[in-house]
Amino acid sequence: MATPTPADKFTFGLWTIGYNGNDPFGGPTRPHLDVVEAVDHLAELGAWGLTFHDDDLFAFGSTDAERQAQIDRLKQALADTGLTVPMITTNLFSQPVFKDGGFTSNDRSVRRFALRKVLRNLDLAAELGATTFVMWGGREGAEYDAAKDIRAALERYREAVNLLGDYVTDKGYDIRFAIEPKPNEPRGDILLPTVGHALAFIQSLERPELVGLNPEVGHEQMAGLNFAAGIAQALYHGKLFHIDLNGQRGIKYDQDLVFAHGDLYNAFALVDLLENGAPGGGRAYDGPRHFDYKPSRTEDMTGVWDSAAANMRNYLLLKERAAAFRADPEVQAALAAAKVPELSVPTLAEGETYTDLLADRAAFEDFDAGSYFGAKGFGFVRLQQLATEHLLGAR
Amino acid sequence: MATPTPADKFTFGLWTIGYNGNDPFGGPTRPHLDVVEAVDHLAELGAWGLTFHDDDLFAFGSTDAERQAQIDRLKQALADTGLTVPMITTNLFSQPVFKDGGFTSNDRSVRRFALRKVLRNLDLAAELGATTFVMWGGREGAEYDAAKDIRAALERYREAVNLLGDYVTDKGYDIRFAIEPKPNEPRGDILLPTVGHALAFIQSLERPELVGLNPEVGHEQMAGLNFAAGIAQALYHGKLFHIDLNGQRGIKYDQDLVFAHGDLYNAFALVDLLENGAPGGGRAYDGPRHFDYKPSRTEDMTGVWDSAAANMRNYLLLKERAAAFRADPEVQAALAAAKVPELSVPTLAEGETYTDLLADRAAFEDFDAGSYFGAKGFGFVRLQQLATEHLLGAR
Amino acid sequence: MATPTPADKFTFGLWTIGYNGNDPFGGPTRPHLDVVEAVDHLAELGAWGLTFHDDDLFAFGSTDAERQAQIDRLKQALADTGLTVPMITTNLFSQPVFKDGGFTSNDRSVRRFALRKVLRNLDLAAELGATTFVMWGGREGAEYDAAKDIRAALERYREAVNLLGDYVTDKGYDIRFAIEPKPNEPRGDILLPTVGHALAFIQSLERPELVGLNPEVGHEQMAGLNFAAGIAQALYHGKLFHIDLNGQRGIKYDQDLVFAHGDLYNAFALVDLLENGAPGGGRAYDGPRHFDYKPSRTEDMTGVWDSAAANMRNYLLLKERAAAFRADPEVQAALAAAKVPELSVPTLAEGETYTDLLADRAAFEDFDAGSYFGAKGFGFVRLQQLATEHLLGAR
Amino acid sequence: MATPTPADKFTFGLWTIGYNGNDPFGGPTRPHLDVVEAVDHLAELGAWGLTFHDDDLFAFGSTDAERQAQIDRLKQALADTGLTVPMITTNLFSQPVFKDGGFTSNDRSVRRFALRKVLRNLDLAAELGATTFVMWGGREGAEYDAAKDIRAALERYREAVNLLGDYVTDKGYDIRFAIEPKPNEPRGDILLPTVGHALAFIQSLERPELVGLNPEVGHEQMAGLNFAAGIAQALYHGKLFHIDLNGQRGIKYDQDLVFAHGDLYNAFALVDLLENGAPGGGRAYDGPRHFDYKPSRTEDMTGVWDSAAANMRNYLLLKERAAAFRADPEVQAALAAAKVPELSVPTLAEGETYTDLLADRAAFEDFDAGSYFGAKGFGFVRLQQLATEHLLGAR
Repeated sequence: MATPTPADKFTFGLWTIGYNGNDPFGGPTRPHLDVVEAVDHLAELGAWGLTFHDDDLFAFGSTDAERQAQIDRLKQALADTGLTVPMITTNLFSQPVFKDGGFTSNDRSVRRFALRKVLRNLDLAAELGATTFVMWGGREGAEYDAAKDIRAALERYREAVNLLGDYVTDKGYDIRFAIEPKPNEPRGDILLPTVGHALAFIQSLERPELVGLNPEVGHEQMAGLNFAAGIAQALYHGKLFHIDLNGQRGIKYDQDLVFAHGDLYNAFALVDLLENGAPGGGRAYDGPRHFDYKPSRTEDMTGVWDSAAANMRNYLLLKERAAAFRADPEVQAALAAAKVPELSVPTLAEGETYTDLLADRAAFEDFDAGSYFGAKGFGFVRLQQLATEHLLGAR
Repeated sequence: MATPTPADKFTFGLWTIGYNGNDPFGGPTRPHLDVVEAVDHLAELGAWGLTFHDDDLFAFGSTDAERQAQIDRLKQALADTGLTVPMITTNLFSQPVFKDGGFTSNDRSVRRFALRKVLRNLDLAAELGATTFVMWGGREGAEYDAAKDIRAALERYREAVNLLGDYVTDKGYDIRFAIEPKPNEPRGDILLPTVGHALAFIQSLERPELVGLNPEVGHEQMAGLNFAAGIAQALYHGKLFHIDLNGQRGIKYDQDLVFAHGDLYNAFALVDLLENGAPGGGRAYDGPRHFDYKPSRTEDMTGVWDSAAANMRNYLLLKERAAAFRADPEVQAALAAAKVPELSVPTLAEGETYTDLLADRAAFEDFDAGSYFGAKGFGFVRLQQLATEHLLGAR
Repeated sequence: MATPTPADKFTFGLWTIGYNGNDPFGGPTRPHLDVVEAVDHLAELGAWGLTFHDDDLFAFGSTDAERQAQIDRLKQALADTGLTVPMITTNLFSQPVFKDGGFTSNDRSVRRFALRKVLRNLDLAAELGATTFVMWGGREGAEYDAAKDIRAALERYREAVNLLGDYVTDKGYDIRFAIEPKPNEPRGDILLPTVGHALAFIQSLERPELVGLNPEVGHEQMAGLNFAAGIAQALYHGKLFHIDLNGQRGIKYDQDLVFAHGDLYNAFALVDLLENGAPGGGRAYDGPRHFDYKPSRTEDMTGVWDSAAANMRNYLLLKERAAAFRADPEVQAALAAAKVPELSVPTLAEGETYTDLLADRAAFEDFDAGSYFGAKGFGFVRLQQLATEHLLGAR
Repeated sequence: MATPTPADKFTFGLWTIGYNGNDPFGGPTRPHLDVVEAVDHLAELGAWGLTFHDDDLFAFGSTDAERQAQIDRLKQALADTGLTVPMITTNLFSQPVFKDGGFTSNDRSVRRFALRKVLRNLDLAAELGATTFVMWGGREGAEYDAAKDIRAALERYREAVNLLGDYVTDKGYDIRFAIEPKPNEPRGDILLPTVGHALAFIQSLERPELVGLNPEVGHEQMAGLNFAAGIAQALYHGKLFHIDLNGQRGIKYDQDLVFAHGDLYNAFALVDLLENGAPGGGRAYDGPRHFDYKPSRTEDMTGVWDSAAANMRNYLLLKERAAAFRADPEVQAALAAAKVPELSVPTLAEGETYTDLLADRAAFEDFDAGSYFGAKGFGFVRLQQLATEHLLGAR
């Protein structure tokens, strides 16, 4: 019970367990983690896959030989353990060259360099069998309004993604792109700051079907937004291509805590949505459950592996509770009392037109709006209390 | 100078100058403001138009005669003053019947009632010559995740807007819809919480061309988002149909302060964008400059009219400063040094393909990424300082 | 199990269960709740006490006879049920006269009126046997910096509290005062915005021993502060005189949700602190567990009473989990490994002076600071995971 | 005009202009800045002083000789330029040994090491003539509630500051301590998170007169608090010993922008308060105007020095505008109309007691509270508009 297996599709970024503790006010507290050790440990813990940025695996500026050596070591480790690489991504944010961004740097030669770095990494993704290619534009943004022409930036971003779409199509790669929104940090304001902004942008692309989202729990919560609700909208538009699970304690710097060590209620709602679909039914998610977190800087390597295990265990514990919540007849009754299923019933009857609606006196002229005062409560608090008690394991 | 005239297209909600001071911890501090007095005063102050919710003009539950009497009084006042009604909107949030929303209430009969209320109000909008119909779904949301099936709610919202689109099309009304996003308050989380989420939703509609946005300064800032950047994205997608100007002091309750009495930098960037277009050119906005604010509860009617005037004066003062900023040769030089215009240059040369890019050694193999360390600064701080000095009237 | 009794000392504000649903965007959804009905229901549910503002019990502007009639009705209900009134408070925020505050209104005659209103209410508190008198200065603040001389405001607040301290002392009332901080709403910025600011202010009073705090969960969380940590500091200074329990979902408007329906982790830490004291021992709290929440506007009276019960049940469920957490040997081991108890050991040995410390080469010259790199992890994540599993009822 | 001179007492941290651009998502973009170059440039720009952490001047782990060589180089540069060192501070946050804090690390041997590091740095402060010793406890905190016994942490912090107070007293050093609060980052929650919490803590010390505050603009604004209001309270308690000026754009990660490049209104109110005292008079501040900011990572060294100059210029520009605001007869009239000066008039008349107040029928029985409805507005919006127009240089 609550023990992870590859069937759970848990994946980890190499940069997560490999985080050395560097932060704005202090240097590393842990040594570099070798990729082979990472793969071995993750496999032992029951994970299904590893993901990485190019620069995580081979240092920026590596020679071709150095790069290949690291790729080969990774491949061997994957072969030895059965771990997969379902997603890879490109680092367009750590080097000084990207200080004003990659795809949307004001400096055109940087934009060209960024495109080349990504194209090369796409080939690697295809080689490793990754089917999702994440793009987090952490440096695409500005601190000052006059410094960035937002519409030009969107147009350059669009140009870049269109080109990448052409590339994978022509090459026949089985790869889809997933944009990862974030409101701020490291830039004062980042382009495509939320799930919504990225969804809107995608519709402007030449090949929108190739591009979806990789939302991250903490990123939406840094804007005070409801993550589970954002995921529901992404699912509504058919765009949940990948997901980054972690924990965040409200509107502050990006904490990247262990999944569920942040907002426990919303983590519960999220797992319920991913695993059970919406209460009204509809599309659910069957891709990797990807953890993008940072083991706290206070921890040594024992703490790193404990934290990796905690991510998976929390997901499974919440999955159990969500299943019990859905199965509870009292919950079903409370959902019905709250008319939650009624929201899936169309407002107009089958075949009804606005003309029919206008003619229906029961809908308006004879409708007793006053009857909602002091009556016809929705029982939402009771429903939330049932969720609370299931979450607490008290039912 | 800085004196408003109808050519400035300043408009006010009747509920703004008419706000009686009611808030969560206290009752009214001011009496009801009659619509005729409102129209007269606004015209004297140099405003161009008045907007309103149905319930602002005639109380919810009015008889047809009462309703018509108020409409007639308004029409007469408009005729007497030359004021226009370019936008109207429907109140689906104040009455108990809407306690769980209008278009997305879990209660289907409420949804039908809401549609009827809106349809009736659309006829009035057409009658008064309003060409924009705003929809703020303030009660469309939830406090608790299990209480609302978000995908079903989006589907019901979509059903409603599709029906309204059919209606205005069939009737031949010259009316477009503008959705007003808000992240929270009065609900814990509101559907379509940001400009981005609403833009994405619009693309799912049957008649997306009929529907755009009415973003409000404070609503985006309640999520810590950059309002001017959001407006730029709305313009990028061709969806800035209307705008709500006011002031907000950071992430907290919805303050609805006078325009520019909140975040002065972003107000400056916004006026610059609306009036001068993006630095790289592109679509600007020529609709009403609509103030959606609340005169502070501490004020009497003198303070109400002072605050109305302050909104317009601040807009005009910022417009002057934005014009001077754009005209300053030092600013032009700083923008060029910061390569702001270079972002409008496509990353690929005309006719260049990814194959060409891959073959361009200057773009990657021979590119000196290291040269960005300790050099090639963007001069963004200097640019921001120039903006600051123009804003302060110090240049 | 998890059934409340008067021994749990649960108390409710009359304005909580009596909240009619009025909010900034809508009017009441529920009728007035009579005080006798409130007392009866609370007693049935297992509560210990009722609290109220003067204006909750008898409307502002009541005649002496009307006021006395309501007091008498309350007394009879208390006698009939055994419910107590351990705290009362004064409404200095709802009426127009208080639009710029009570004790710190810029208008001196308002300040005098406010003092009189409070003095009268102190007599009532003494008459009813209340021993805590809460002061929430919700209107003491400003929207604009130039509008309020903060130092003068603090001096007037001080003058007021000093006078009240003299009054209860001279009268021999067994009453202590508890200041309730809040950062904003309904004012843009409120005086004494956090637990810290109020603690500092109290030290400036003539009778600091008479004045402590009434911190509210949501108020500190509206500033993104850790409520349990703030309570620990209040306890450290001996100033936790009363407490307001509720739920808040991050930095936004004041939600006043049911206790634990907001940040579940911090609610767990809070109950652990109140019930079990700090891990290192120290002063705990034995006053009322007072719920200051609002039943959601969507609910009818059934929902109101369900929500009242949910507050108490959640407290008791968390109390059980906190006890199990403390009793778990694995938790004890993890606390020791994390050196949590070691923080209670003085840094200097008994009798050691700074001269001794300076002479201790082991403390500095021979201390191996480098040994903390890659080692000596604190195991904090493991500790948090144990807390999580206890919270989830999974151990 | 607006040209800084040493008489303005502008000072800079060595770590500010020396910030190399390292952040959570990227490495340095600028090379190390030598202290002599820093001193020379600052002197040229008109600054008065330099401040630093021990580790800024000589790397952690330096030999005594290396340390002394750097101190000597600094002294020579100071002698050559006339620059002063009015404040120094100790780095207890960058090294792995401090991963759980310095004075409040759960690890007692770390606490002892931290004390030794600070004591050594106090001797250096005295040697260089610094009279303020800042303590920012950036790592004193926790991510998880169970990981830190807050009361024990406060007790250890108190033990440390008491010892330091004894030390400077016995040594006869002319040094006062200034605690710098911060709510979070790099820890999830930091001890003494706001100006208020630190003020309260100081009152618990053995030598409270030796200890005050060093508030930082952005740190309070990261909690959504009004910085100028916090400074006013610090002045009220006589505890503004030093100040850190910078810019922050709302509740998010610590931005450390140039002073006034964040919240322009509050910067204006702050400079007005520091330079002109409160409207009602009272203690003002005459210490260093210390800039604690980070030149944006996008800048090269030209941008660094431009940004340093911008800090000082903005302060002077705001000082001019604040003087004009105070001198404007319309402002004086608006302040009087808003009764701002009346708040400095005691609520009770000279010699009046509560008995007199209770006997004053005009204060209560005959007071017309109803007269505030629809009348007696405070004119706060007009006052804010006057402030706005002075800030914009439009009057």
